[in-house]
Amino acid sequence: MTHTTPHPDRVHLDNGGRARWHPLARRAFLQALDDGWADPRRLHAEGRRAAALLDGAREAVAAVLGARTEEVRFAHSHTAALHSAVLAAAAGRRRAGGDVVVSAVERAAVLHAAHDAAAAHGGRRVDVPVERTGRVDAGAMTEAVAAPGVALAALQHANGEVGTLQPVEDVHAATARAGVPLLVDAGASLGHVELGPAWDLVAADPADWGAPGGVGVVAARGRVRLVPRGPEDPEPWAPGGVSVPAAFAAAVGLQAVVADREAEDARRRALVDRVRATVATVPDVEVVGDPDARLPHVATFSFLYVDGEALLSELDRAGVAVGSGSACTASTLEPSHVLAAMGVLTHGNVRIALDRSTTEHDVERLLAVLPGAVERVRDALGVRGL
Amino acid sequence: MTHTTPHPDRVHLDNGGRARWHPLARRAFLQALDDGWADPRRLHAEGRRAAALLDGAREAVAAVLGARTEEVRFAHSHTAALHSAVLAAAAGRRRAGGDVVVSAVERAAVLHAAHDAAAAHGGRRVDVPVERTGRVDAGAMTEAVAAPGVALAALQHANGEVGTLQPVEDVHAATARAGVPLLVDAGASLGHVELGPAWDLVAADPADWGAPGGVGVVAARGRVRLVPRGPEDPEPWAPGGVSVPAAFAAAVGLQAVVADREAEDARRRALVDRVRATVATVPDVEVVGDPDARLPHVATFSFLYVDGEALLSELDRAGVAVGSGSACTASTLEPSHVLAAMGVLTHGNVRIALDRSTTEHDVERLLAVLPGAVERVRDALGVRGL
Repeated sequence: MTHTTPHPDRVHLDNGGRARWHPLARRAFLQALDDGWADPRRLHAEGRRAAALLDGAREAVAAVLGARTEEVRFAHSHTAALHSAVLAAAAGRRRAGGDVVVSAVERAAVLHAAHDAAAAHGGRRVDVPVERTGRVDAGAMTEAVAAPGVALAALQHANGEVGTLQPVEDVHAATARAGVPLLVDAGASLGHVELGPAWDLVAADPADWGAPGGVGVVAARGRVRLVPRGPEDPEPWAPGGVSVPAAFAAAVGLQAVVADREAEDARRRALVDRVRATVATVPDVEVVGDPDARLPHVATFSFLYVDGEALLSELDRAGVAVGSGSACTASTLEPSHVLAAMGVLTHGNVRIALDRSTTEHDVERLLAVLPGAVERVRDALGVRGL
Repeated sequence: MTHTTPHPDRVHLDNGGRARWHPLARRAFLQALDDGWADPRRLHAEGRRAAALLDGAREAVAAVLGARTEEVRFAHSHTAALHSAVLAAAAGRRRAGGDVVVSAVERAAVLHAAHDAAAAHGGRRVDVPVERTGRVDAGAMTEAVAAPGVALAALQHANGEVGTLQPVEDVHAATARAGVPLLVDAGASLGHVELGPAWDLVAADPADWGAPGGVGVVAARGRVRLVPRGPEDPEPWAPGGVSVPAAFAAAVGLQAVVADREAEDARRRALVDRVRATVATVPDVEVVGDPDARLPHVATFSFLYVDGEALLSELDRAGVAVGSGSACTASTLEPSHVLAAMGVLTHGNVRIALDRSTTEHDVERLLAVLPGAVERVRDALGVRGL
């Protein structure tokens, strides 16, 4: 189990869904490892200390979400949180019907779980289309949730792949009128932008805000009826329990990124604006996502006559790591269902997501190497001068 | 999120299923955190390094299990691994029938998943009784797996609650003759005793051998047909992926404990023998579990006229942490199904599990305070002199 050390001058701009740990998250993890390593379900002093750390973590996350502590649960990952939330909420409403209404650009985990939940209760998944910016058609979603037989609706807070913020307030008003619970996937948002109260269930991703992987967050308002699935288990949201140090580090990391969110917002938004404006000058490129209503740290663009994987490798060789293709599914090689639903180029796609360590120098490095990398990939495909 | 520091002279003897991290596991975790924090599914250098660490971890675990690397998967916890293994293997054999044969002293996760898997395929869970030592009746299990309509059998390698080793070789020979795959829960064994090759699927628990929680291990021989359940996911065994640092630390920790297993075996076995012999002199006690065919580090006893929770609290106040009741289910307050199946006292139960840091002094501390603690609990219940 050997490993190579990274190039000292590497620029890493692929921090969406998996960022380096925030220094305070790391410190919290090590503290909790010394102090909260025991099983929080045990009654002795060590167990009670672990339980206290876990309770403190729930309380801190609840404060950021605007939820009550008992409404917050930890899951084993963001994907697992989304699966459980969709299945448990749809099962809890199965008397109302089996349909699950989703935007077409939800994360694969939501789309798959919505399909399964609908199938289990004799309903169907209803996909609501999006505009070319990636923003869901709020009118169409309002209409869809008002139809009879809808168990649950799901709308992401922002699309992590293209950065577009969704009209969750409008859609939540519509679901509330229809008496349908709304699941908001805040996996790309929480820690970066204000979430607001427009949700009935919400899931968020510690790995995205610079905290440990292997832990997810899900909250459900007390009024939402949930029927968790799976073998009878006292911890249906995280069978076997989550790592206490990981949950504690997730909470401390969230507090840390929320504390400097405004300053980071302005700084990263300026860098993203610079990237979007400069990349737009490359020939045959489409800068995608809403130009204004967007996450502060994500930029996405698609190049005509370019293979995304080849471009990623070319940039990697030049010392710059970016994301490509479908950032929200496991394989980077499948064409993105998000870009397809938006009606933009699904190939030749690059996404960057800046974290708190990203500097102006990093962004300038990307902008310096990108045009040449695109040209080399196009040359290799024999499309120069098309 | 404040916390208190532990008493410096605490003795912690409740290390079954959740032990302090081995120093090498901790070092490996921090190394992988610096080097393998990225998403292993990404194609850039950082992603490839994370993927290499994960592959190395699988390879190291495979070497200890006697499996091929590609047969090993990481799950989100030992419980999740057992759920997935039972459900996927039973679904893979649904044409053969729906029955799932288990010993009556399997972990709650196995019992629940076996119930669900059988129900899903029109079968039933068949519970095979155990002797008073906790050892399954190998003849009855042989008979049960030879019946028509059996999809899967499950037998733990050792019972973590009472330490008794199970006749997995005999039972595996019987399941092999019947063409039924055998799932072996090695969650209390791996790292402590030699596992051997008598399994078709095996699950093990890093948190038990002094490695991170939030990660489980499951391996299935290539010949076992598996149909994983749950929303379509490229990682059905760990939706969303496991923490690479946690998986890497699990593997390094396993290598470390296997390396000094023989020395640790003799040392801890002597301590356990001393505990079992001394505790047997307390009035009205039953020392449970097989006296010889047992794990080297676990000792369990039940006191007549004693409430287990009260005894645990009394010992905790005296600075000694022990386990109590049903160590394999989430709540320590429910009576143990394992002890009930064995036909021994289900109340007034204490389990100790020694880790590598447990000293002779620790054990002597327990033995010094235990008789007085038992007496105080009996006094409080008014049963002195019964």
